[in-house]
Amino acid sequence: MKALVWRGPREVEVAEVAEPALIEPTDAIVTVSLAAICGTDLHAYRGEIEAIPAGTVLGHEFVGIVAAIGSAVRGLRIGDRVVASDLVACGECWWCEREWHYQCQEASLFGYGSVVGEELPGGQAERVRVPRADLVLRPLAPGIDDADAIFVGDVLATAHMAVAESNLPAEGAVAIVGCGPVGLCTVMCALRAGAGSVFAVDPNPVRRARAAELGALPVDPGGKTDVAGSMANGADVVVEAVGSDASLHTALGLVRPRGTVVVVGAHHSEAMPFSTLDAFARELTIRFVVGDPIAVREELLEAIVAGELKPASVVSHRLPLEQGPEAYRLFDRQEAVKVLLVPES
Amino acid sequence: MKALVWRGPREVEVAEVAEPALIEPTDAIVTVSLAAICGTDLHAYRGEIEAIPAGTVLGHEFVGIVAAIGSAVRGLRIGDRVVASDLVACGECWWCEREWHYQCQEASLFGYGSVVGEELPGGQAERVRVPRADLVLRPLAPGIDDADAIFVGDVLATAHMAVAESNLPAEGAVAIVGCGPVGLCTVMCALRAGAGSVFAVDPNPVRRARAAELGALPVDPGGKTDVAGSMANGADVVVEAVGSDASLHTALGLVRPRGTVVVVGAHHSEAMPFSTLDAFARELTIRFVVGDPIAVREELLEAIVAGELKPASVVSHRLPLEQGPEAYRLFDRQEAVKVLLVPES
Repeated sequence: MKALVWRGPREVEVAEVAEPALIEPTDAIVTVSLAAICGTDLHAYRGEIEAIPAGTVLGHEFVGIVAAIGSAVRGLRIGDRVVASDLVACGECWWCEREWHYQCQEASLFGYGSVVGEELPGGQAERVRVPRADLVLRPLAPGIDDADAIFVGDVLATAHMAVAESNLPAEGAVAIVGCGPVGLCTVMCALRAGAGSVFAVDPNPVRRARAAELGALPVDPGGKTDVAGSMANGADVVVEAVGSDASLHTALGLVRPRGTVVVVGAHHSEAMPFSTLDAFARELTIRFVVGDPIAVREELLEAIVAGELKPASVVSHRLPLEQGPEAYRLFDRQEAVKVLLVPES
Repeated sequence: MKALVWRGPREVEVAEVAEPALIEPTDAIVTVSLAAICGTDLHAYRGEIEAIPAGTVLGHEFVGIVAAIGSAVRGLRIGDRVVASDLVACGECWWCEREWHYQCQEASLFGYGSVVGEELPGGQAERVRVPRADLVLRPLAPGIDDADAIFVGDVLATAHMAVAESNLPAEGAVAIVGCGPVGLCTVMCALRAGAGSVFAVDPNPVRRARAAELGALPVDPGGKTDVAGSMANGADVVVEAVGSDASLHTALGLVRPRGTVVVVGAHHSEAMPFSTLDAFARELTIRFVVGDPIAVREELLEAIVAGELKPASVVSHRLPLEQGPEAYRLFDRQEAVKVLLVPES
C-alpha cells in the first residue's frame, strides 16, 4: 500500500510499504478516507525529534472505514465509519480511569516514533493498524462529515480542553497565541464557552484574517494593535497554541494578574528563562494540557451535529495523498492553514 | 517609641523611632500587643532585597489595640482589639472588587520597603500607623487569642489559599515542601480540606517532627523515605512553601502527572531552568498564589473559634520586642519555628 514516509529533515515521500496486519485480538485495520497534517507533524517533518526515525509513516489524524477487526473487538463492525483518537491508551489503568489517557503507562501516538510509548505507523496512508480499537476508534453517525470528524481526533479536542481547563470567567477575555488549526479551533471553543472577547495573536495576516472570520479580534504581535476594553488589564486566559519559548513568553506577557496561561503547543525545551519573580508578583497560573480525544469526543461530536462547532471551516487545502510532499511544504511555510490528504479509493 | 529596625544584612536593632501619626482620615494608629517574624522577613533581614532600605521598621504580622482613628474611619473604635492584614489595598478598584487585593494598583506591605507600593513602617514596634484601617484591620471577638489571630493576617491566609486554589481531589495526597510556619499551617489546612494524606518534606528534623504532630507523614528529601500508598503516582497537589528555585524543583519532582504545584513561597528569580518538555509531557499546572488575609480572614477566624484550626500551635518562641535581634538570629538559623515578639506594655 501507499503511505507518506519521513526520510529526513523536510523530506517526505509517498512510498510502497507493507500492508498492516492484525497483531493483537483488540486491533482493527482501518481503510483511511481522509488524513490530516497536524502542526505537531511539523516537528517530525523538520527533523527536530530524535525519537522519530527515518522510515516512519507519519500522521495521527485520520478518518476511515473499518476493514478488519481482531477477535476481541466488541464495539465495531467491518464497514463502520470511524474517527481515530491520535492517542492509544489501555483504557483500564489508574490514569485511564480518570480519563487522563495521555498519562497511561501504555500510551502511544500514531506516526510519532517512540516519543510516547511504542512506535505505531501513522495514518497518512491507505490503511493503518489501530491497537485497542474499541477505545481508539469512535463510530460516526451519518450526519457528520469526514472533514469535521477528523478534527475530533486531535485538534478540536486540544482546543476544547484548552478552554475547558482554563478557569474562564463568564464573559472573560481570551487571547490565543498562534492561529494555526488549534488556535482557530480555540477561537470557536472560547466563543462557544461564553468568552466575552477573543483576541487572536499571530504575525501571519492570513491566519489573523481567518480568526477574524470566526469572530476573533486580530492582533499583530509585531504591530501597534489597540487592545482596548476587556483586554486593558490583560487577558483572563491566554492559550499558547504554538509550542515555542518565544510564544510562551508572548503568552505570559498578555495574561492579566491572577490569570491563566494554558499551554497546548507541544514543548521540547529542557530549560526556559521563566521569571518566578514575575509569576509570583502577578500570581499567575501556567497549565500544560495535552488534548485527549477519548475523554471529550462525545461532547464534541454532539456540538458539531448541533452546528455549534464547524471545525472543517479552517481547512484551506484538500490534496490527494500522492501530493503529500507538496502538502507538507505548504504547511511548513504557512502557505496552508490546514491540509487534508485523500488516499485514492 | 521603640521599634525593630533593619540596619544591613543580618543586622537589626531595637531603636527609638518617631511616634506614628494619623496622616489620612482613613488611617488608624494601633498599639501593638503582639508581633511576629515571617519567613518573608528573612529575605529583608539577609539583605536580599534592594527595595528595602536600611532604617526600615520591619514586620507585617501584628495584633493590637486601636489607639487612634482618622475622621473617615467608620468600622473601628478606639480600644478595639484587631488583627491587621499584612497587605494594604484600596478596596474599591477592579482588582479589589474581585478580592484580588494583592494586585490592587495601590497595594503596599507593612515593613517591606518599596517592594510593593509605598513604604510603610512595619509592626515590629510599639505602635504602627495603619492606612485604610477599615479594610486592613479586623476586630477580634473575645473568644480568640492574640497568638491565633496573628496568623490570620498572613501565614494562615497563605496556607489556606494554597489549599483552596489547588484543585485538591477528595481524599487526595498533598505534599508540602518546607515546614516552616506556612508549611505547618498548610498541613492543618490540607487536613481540614479533606486531604487523604499529607506529606511534609523538610530537611530539618525538628520541623518534620512538628509536621508529624499535626498529622503529616514526614519526608526527609535527602533520605530514603518510603513514600508508598497514595503517593505512589506522585502527589495530587504539592505546595511549595519555601521560595527558592531548589524547592520549586523538589516540588515539580513530587507532583503526579496532571497534578498542581501551588507556589506560595516568595520568589525572586529572574530566570529559572524550567523544563517545558517535562511540564508538557506530564501536563502540570503551576500556580503562584500570594495569601490574601482580607479575602479569607472571616472564614479563618470562624474556623479558629470552632477549633478546626489551631495555628498558635506552631509557635516555638515568645520573646520581648527588646530581644528582636536574638529572635531574628534564631529564626534565620532555623533554631526557632515561629517567633512572637511582645512589646512592653
